[in-house]
Amino acid sequence: MEFKISRDFIAQIEQLISENKGNELENLLQEIHYADIAEIMEELDDYEASYLFKILDSEKTAEILLELDEEVREKILRNLSAKEIAEELDELNTDDAADIIAELPQSKKEEVISELEDVEHAKDIVDLLRYDEDTAGGLMAKELVKVNENWNVLTCVKEMRHQAENVSRVHSIYVVDDEERLKGRLSLKDLLTTSTKTPISEVYIKKVDYVKVDTKDVEVARIMQKYDLEAIPVIDELGRLVGRITIDDIVDVIKEEADKDYQLAAGISQDVEADDSILELTRARLPWLVLALLGGFISVRVLGLFDGAMDNHPELFFFTPLIAAMAGNVGVQSSAIIVQGLANNTLSGSLWSRLLKEVTLSLLNGLILGVILLIGSHFLLNVNFMLGITVTVALLSVIVTASVLGTFIPMTLNRYGIDPALATGPFITTSNDICGILIYFSIAKMILGF
Amino acid sequence: MEFKISRDFIAQIEQLISENKGNELENLLQEIHYADIAEIMEELDDYEASYLFKILDSEKTAEILLELDEEVREKILRNLSAKEIAEELDELNTDDAADIIAELPQSKKEEVISELEDVEHAKDIVDLLRYDEDTAGGLMAKELVKVNENWNVLTCVKEMRHQAENVSRVHSIYVVDDEERLKGRLSLKDLLTTSTKTPISEVYIKKVDYVKVDTKDVEVARIMQKYDLEAIPVIDELGRLVGRITIDDIVDVIKEEADKDYQLAAGISQDVEADDSILELTRARLPWLVLALLGGFISVRVLGLFDGAMDNHPELFFFTPLIAAMAGNVGVQSSAIIVQGLANNTLSGSLWSRLLKEVTLSLLNGLILGVILLIGSHFLLNVNFMLGITVTVALLSVIVTASVLGTFIPMTLNRYGIDPALATGPFITTSNDICGILIYFSIAKMILGF
Repeated sequence: MEFKISRDFIAQIEQLISENKGNELENLLQEIHYADIAEIMEELDDYEASYLFKILDSEKTAEILLELDEEVREKILRNLSAKEIAEELDELNTDDAADIIAELPQSKKEEVISELEDVEHAKDIVDLLRYDEDTAGGLMAKELVKVNENWNVLTCVKEMRHQAENVSRVHSIYVVDDEERLKGRLSLKDLLTTSTKTPISEVYIKKVDYVKVDTKDVEVARIMQKYDLEAIPVIDELGRLVGRITIDDIVDVIKEEADKDYQLAAGISQDVEADDSILELTRARLPWLVLALLGGFISVRVLGLFDGAMDNHPELFFFTPLIAAMAGNVGVQSSAIIVQGLANNTLSGSLWSRLLKEVTLSLLNGLILGVILLIGSHFLLNVNFMLGITVTVALLSVIVTASVLGTFIPMTLNRYGIDPALATGPFITTSNDICGILIYFSIAKMILGF
Repeated sequence: MEFKISRDFIAQIEQLISENKGNELENLLQEIHYADIAEIMEELDDYEASYLFKILDSEKTAEILLELDEEVREKILRNLSAKEIAEELDELNTDDAADIIAELPQSKKEEVISELEDVEHAKDIVDLLRYDEDTAGGLMAKELVKVNENWNVLTCVKEMRHQAENVSRVHSIYVVDDEERLKGRLSLKDLLTTSTKTPISEVYIKKVDYVKVDTKDVEVARIMQKYDLEAIPVIDELGRLVGRITIDDIVDVIKEEADKDYQLAAGISQDVEADDSILELTRARLPWLVLALLGGFISVRVLGLFDGAMDNHPELFFFTPLIAAMAGNVGVQSSAIIVQGLANNTLSGSLWSRLLKEVTLSLLNGLILGVILLIGSHFLLNVNFMLGITVTVALLSVIVTASVLGTFIPMTLNRYGIDPALATGPFITTSNDICGILIYFSIAKMILGF
């Protein structure tokens, strides 16, 4: 059922733009969803995208703005006057409008705000700009339906009708006191089945889930997921109802957080996409590579310490990549499970019980892998028995150490309030490489004596 | 605002259970959310958890069942008769009930189904069991509000009241024809502001997003996210409306998909959690480790090919872990960006343009890293100039190759319908290790000649 954007369709649009046929273009795009138009615009060049944007009406363009990639949006906005941008924002919910304003350069920001027509809307947007974007305050919208506990059902219904005009989807009706403090919520059903003179205070539900303006976005996501909420009210330091967050915003938070963890695990340090510029991609990728390279320097020095082995046991050096790779893989496995457990809040028990479990697990894995290595080194790699034993003992020790490090590092980072996902990817692989090689050659020195 | 489960609270509950004080326990848990009770039950032993479950009323326990970890749920269900399980399921929506039945052993499945009281409900559940769990059919619920295009507004409102009783949250009203084929949707507002005698066919919106029963769950998630939908109707092969999917189910799909990709990147091959048993964790982790070990065997053989270098250039072997690590890291970075781009559908352009970009990017990164290595090898590692040059040239070649492989492998897997995320983690690291070492020593042989 989804509209598929074809090469031909894009070509047709480009043709119409070059022939300056605005009306035909508008007809062609009439039935197309704004999310699809946004995708089409991302395929066009700057001039074409701006042209397309200007011929569409502002109800549609406002939604398109929201769907565009940040870069394309920036280009479009650069071609619009402050007044034109303000017109777009007047069509949007406060949270979306605030997000777009936050992306503007400082000077244009104020100009746009002063051009907003609806004063209440403008006030709400300015208010939202105060909050950090990764908190409940930064996520919430001002659009909500609220009633005073001292009203009766009749006043309530009237007021609600009025308020609901600005709210695209009513998820809940919130009840506040005279000081605007959140007291509870109201079910639509109760409201409709109660006598119109009944005071709200008698019918509302006093139990309501909420978050504070400074609650972290990932925490809001966790709470809404756990309690299966489609919307949650947000209160300020004084308990006053200041906004609400809906599930679609949370979907974005979950997606972004997952993408970020995935990228950290892969050694990519910024929020980048495959289609970003080479410079941006380099900025995201180079830092971890430099770190890994410096780690590599250390491994060169560590190997240098054991150059005495070169004369009698040169084959030892053939096994370094194998040992390093196993250490890296085991370490990443351990840390990934911990990082995911921390993110999903499914980690029970103490650090010590966790480490004990990890050691048991890695001993089991290590023994199985050790047997494979012992047999393989004899039959496939034709090394002598003592060397086989050496490498096998080293592998077992390295696996246990790597899994302990992989458990210990993220849990410790987390305890000190640092994102444990940093401990996945290159960081854990590099430190495990170095430790692994050190352990391997130390054991070899003990067994073979060089 | 979230209820925090303390050690003390758990101890208090355990105490009450051991003293067999069911009533006090019920009072204590009266105000606690079912999601929190599920968390509490996961902290208790089997007997305690079952005890707790049995004293609570079935409206609450049905929801608790849904929230429990699969393992704990299995234990609880094992202690319940088919009739008792059926009572729980009668409280649940069809999709949730079907999910729970699907987890039961075959013999108990039929028994439970035959005990379901509400025949319509039972029919719907059986119907849902036919679909694969990773398709729209497996995600959808049967509960929805639908009206016939031939009715008038009055009939419609009456019918809707009746239907809405079974639907916890009405997201949309769907319009069907006499053959139950989906024709469009109805806005509540239009329904309430139109004369009661108006035929529905005159007021309904003919444009409606939908998915087919066999659409993949990740595709449903993508469509709902893209078009900002809170619910989407599902049609069968004949275009008949058979169910609807709500955004909360999609949140789970997104979360699971992200977790799975993350785990694949970390070399964990099944859906496991930190709290799973050592055996389960081993099953998830060992396969990739065995693969990496076998890859290690190959790297030992490759190094063996170049043992001639041992005499004149032993330091070459000190650099193998560095080269292998860099190859691994670059490869994972490249493939992670591709895998994410494929998952988010943000990848434009052909394989060749993608490869060209990646080569440019890796040349840039490689040159910067090469300079660091050249300087570092001279000042920090004190190796001779020719060796420094050799290692630097090798690093640059290895980085370019690794990034090409990291781009090519996931894109090719994807083209053949294989999950590209398989190409992240150990698979890409291992193949890059081997290639990297081979390239490194080949270049060294060319430059230094041994």
